[in-house]
Amino acid sequence: MAFTLQQVAGFSEMAKACGYEEASDDVVAAILQEAAKFSSSVIAPINAAGDQSGVHLEPDHSVITPDGFAEAYQQYADSGWASLQFDPKFGGQGLPFSLAIPVQEMWHAANMAWGLCPLLSQGAVEALSENASDALKQKLLPKMISGRWTGTMNLTEPQSGSDLSDIRTKAWQDGDVYRIKGQKIFITWGEHNMAENIIHLVLARLPDAPPGVKGISLFAVPKYLPDVSGEPGERNDCRAVSLEHKLGIHASPTCVMSYGDNEGAIGYLVGEENQGLACMFTMMNNARLTVGLQGVSISERAYQQARDYAFERTQGTAPGEHPGVSPIIRHPDVRRMLMTMKALTEAARGLAYTGCVAVDYANTLHLPDGARERYQRRADLLTPLVKGWCTEIAQEVTSLGIQVYGGMGFIEETGIAQHYRDARILPIYEGTNGIQALDLVGRKIIRNQGKAMAELIDDMRQLTVPVQRTSSLTAERQARFDQAVAFLEDATGIVLDRGNDDQFTGSVAHNYLMLSATVTAAWLMLKSTTAAAKQSIDEDSYAASKLATTNFFFDHILPRSSAYVTALRSGDDAIMALPEIDF
Amino acid sequence: MAFTLQQVAGFSEMAKACGYEEASDDVVAAILQEAAKFSSSVIAPINAAGDQSGVHLEPDHSVITPDGFAEAYQQYADSGWASLQFDPKFGGQGLPFSLAIPVQEMWHAANMAWGLCPLLSQGAVEALSENASDALKQKLLPKMISGRWTGTMNLTEPQSGSDLSDIRTKAWQDGDVYRIKGQKIFITWGEHNMAENIIHLVLARLPDAPPGVKGISLFAVPKYLPDVSGEPGERNDCRAVSLEHKLGIHASPTCVMSYGDNEGAIGYLVGEENQGLACMFTMMNNARLTVGLQGVSISERAYQQARDYAFERTQGTAPGEHPGVSPIIRHPDVRRMLMTMKALTEAARGLAYTGCVAVDYANTLHLPDGARERYQRRADLLTPLVKGWCTEIAQEVTSLGIQVYGGMGFIEETGIAQHYRDARILPIYEGTNGIQALDLVGRKIIRNQGKAMAELIDDMRQLTVPVQRTSSLTAERQARFDQAVAFLEDATGIVLDRGNDDQFTGSVAHNYLMLSATVTAAWLMLKSTTAAAKQSIDEDSYAASKLATTNFFFDHILPRSSAYVTALRSGDDAIMALPEIDF
Repeated sequence: MAFTLQQVAGFSEMAKACGYEEASDDVVAAILQEAAKFSSSVIAPINAAGDQSGVHLEPDHSVITPDGFAEAYQQYADSGWASLQFDPKFGGQGLPFSLAIPVQEMWHAANMAWGLCPLLSQGAVEALSENASDALKQKLLPKMISGRWTGTMNLTEPQSGSDLSDIRTKAWQDGDVYRIKGQKIFITWGEHNMAENIIHLVLARLPDAPPGVKGISLFAVPKYLPDVSGEPGERNDCRAVSLEHKLGIHASPTCVMSYGDNEGAIGYLVGEENQGLACMFTMMNNARLTVGLQGVSISERAYQQARDYAFERTQGTAPGEHPGVSPIIRHPDVRRMLMTMKALTEAARGLAYTGCVAVDYANTLHLPDGARERYQRRADLLTPLVKGWCTEIAQEVTSLGIQVYGGMGFIEETGIAQHYRDARILPIYEGTNGIQALDLVGRKIIRNQGKAMAELIDDMRQLTVPVQRTSSLTAERQARFDQAVAFLEDATGIVLDRGNDDQFTGSVAHNYLMLSATVTAAWLMLKSTTAAAKQSIDEDSYAASKLATTNFFFDHILPRSSAYVTALRSGDDAIMALPEIDF
Repeated sequence: MAFTLQQVAGFSEMAKACGYEEASDDVVAAILQEAAKFSSSVIAPINAAGDQSGVHLEPDHSVITPDGFAEAYQQYADSGWASLQFDPKFGGQGLPFSLAIPVQEMWHAANMAWGLCPLLSQGAVEALSENASDALKQKLLPKMISGRWTGTMNLTEPQSGSDLSDIRTKAWQDGDVYRIKGQKIFITWGEHNMAENIIHLVLARLPDAPPGVKGISLFAVPKYLPDVSGEPGERNDCRAVSLEHKLGIHASPTCVMSYGDNEGAIGYLVGEENQGLACMFTMMNNARLTVGLQGVSISERAYQQARDYAFERTQGTAPGEHPGVSPIIRHPDVRRMLMTMKALTEAARGLAYTGCVAVDYANTLHLPDGARERYQRRADLLTPLVKGWCTEIAQEVTSLGIQVYGGMGFIEETGIAQHYRDARILPIYEGTNGIQALDLVGRKIIRNQGKAMAELIDDMRQLTVPVQRTSSLTAERQARFDQAVAFLEDATGIVLDRGNDDQFTGSVAHNYLMLSATVTAAWLMLKSTTAAAKQSIDEDSYAASKLATTNFFFDHILPRSSAYVTALRSGDDAIMALPEIDF
């Protein structure tokens, strides 16, 4: 993880350029070590039991969380993990966002359901930090950054999911505050007993607001209203009215929240009236990166577990072995599955970290002219790739995890099936991957006339030369990479040419996302191989390992880019030809 | 289904050639209609409740099945569904195996957990029909073929799954019968209350049997020993000792079976001593085809449900629509998902039916010299393709089903997640897909020097000419098909060249299976388009629909063959390069 952060994503360079001098290699190593200890000794052990017991709504509308969850959360807050990347003015530690990323990767690998509580809280802190008034920041941020209060994100209503224009929750002014009335669904950690208070960020519509997304405002609605001393006081008029029964993340309460059943829940306006969607986007963008990161986490977890099983489980005689039973890791098809899991996970990690380092650059105001804007474009471009691709590969990796286990994989007690169930939410929440693909082609390619992608492709082409010298990648693999980059350039041209045809762009968006992420991931695997080869000769075996994984990626994963580009070139022809009546 | 059976798989031609004159088009249509009625009115309605309630083992070792399951089974047996394709000598209806296939497809689409009970019973009937003595057949078959008794398949032991050489269950002769002692795991419908008796087919080892798979014998072990009148009599010494908690198929009891806890369970030898594996293979081969068929079933179920939801659910304004909300089926990315589901399911159905028609030919002794052997090779070749590919695509299709539902897909109450969970067993049981791939390259390609595949490729090439004339497939798509066939021929050559290198063949097996199945499926889609185009002009819209689906398959699915062949050409290099210590 440290290698990927520093050598692939360029963390140290960023830390220097962006004024994070305190985030030295030693500090990074120490933080990762501590996070590893906390996640493996505190959060991971309660994962399986949490899946089995699930969460329960009591008649008084409180939510009972699984054994150990509240204690683990308390320890997390007490240890200062919640404040890592936030503003020292409100009690944060002022470390880079991208350093919080490998730390969070461990939380989610250890216990994705538990990790969602911090994930949503951090998104809420970001939205408030960017958009709230100073007074509101003072009221909420210190408590939230310390981890004593958590946060949630309330967008979805039954009729309004991917499309937020039809949000019906009402808000009206009432003296200094606002009142909120309406129902929200799919509210992750909307109610629980792990923290002193919960700050709900709620999208709602003011009277006479314009229709559609331009009439949505954002409100902070505390579970308990802060009293004069700033501590949780009176109970607000909002509550969880039911919990969903889900395929996975059973230990994470997914609430139906009801606001204003009585006099109206009290809320504080965040940002300007009718600017709610833009405010929510500042929260959503980073949340999308961290959901992509969850894909890396759950993949790593499934990989490690399947690998351990493949060493233990014996069956049949592997090729070249003396008659008798071999550990199944020696059977080539099991090896193929493990290599696929490993290569996809490492590539996804490189992609996620790279996206997050770009965010740190983009947030650094003192960068020279143009540089900050370039990183902003890069972060914007990579966000849907990270969210989309890292969560798609998580489906493949967790499914292979089950397959490595064979019959035992289908038995819940072995635990590998939980990762598969948990992972299935990732392509859905925080904007479905279909929405990510539309965001990519619409806002990230067409809106800037392909500038962000052209810059990325330039970077890819610049890397190819040193690699030819420093690694033993074959010419064939090198040519395959060059061709894949050419596919991406070609596909970008096609998207731009037909940029004003929504049916066309909507039809190619998915394959464009998969193509661009696969090629970018291949580039980052090359980068990791190059970096490993440059390290001292003591690290020989690490360099060899990186090269082997990259070679596998180039032979087994990168060739998918050809299938994506062929599908993309077919445009909307094959997709829209069948009349609705024939479905 | 009738179209695919008759026009793609060539059922009518087979029926004529193989002496099944009674299986006319009208009879086929009538049987499918009745099966549709039974599955939609009796089996489908108890599917979701069965998933929720699951099965329970009582202290007396009996198994409680979900409400309505036993009644549905009784109705199934009473209606004669169990006897469709079996020998009239034992009460069967003597219809082709391949006619039972679309019927069974409906059972599994309606309720996969329930459908497993008939599936295993039919496999047991096949094993006994092929291998048992006349006396044993008389004793068991009439009751089993009528459906009054069910059957099971007992291979796996904790240490012995994919590799059966280490089976430790013991058998010894005791007068006219044998005694059995040992424990078996993963026994589907190993105990239940739905039928009067259960015949367990059990692999066990006789004293002084040779080591490995050459020392395994097959025994029929009844739950209740038939009395002098042939009815269930004394309880045998075997019982279910626990049930597995599984990811899916909750309503199907997966038992740990204990044989001979007391004096030894009484069993009857099936076939010769030490020939058990060969006997079991007669059962396994057709069971593999029907497990592949389950992949078609669950895909069709997920497709229909997602399609219905996509018509109902509105969200956002689709391209070219007036402002307002559109049914999500009008959004191109949702359309892409539904087309993927539809194209994969139709192609898989064509592949499964074609494999099963080949089985009927191969079982017809009066065919001219060489023809029967050719069909036997075809059936043998297609079996791992059907089992492997149709179950792999079921993962993709059921996952897309969830994705079409968005957030609601993750909620168990909508029912789409159950198909995803149920489907996950398919690549595992009845021989993992890794085992299927090894069977394909080893027994079906290398052992006959590629003859079976050469014949298949010849058939593919013969079809291309009429299609160019009769359909509006573009030249580009036609060329893509030709190239894919060339990939397959090339890949077959590579497999044959390195046929004696187990590490190499084990490394390429998966990609060879995926490549050959994808190309074969594309050929069958072409065949369906050609057949539809030849029908009367009244059927215009059906021909257009087939063409649209085939075009989609050629643009979005067939291009995967390029990725498979690239991975295959890399051989064992990339797969085996990473040392074990680096995992």
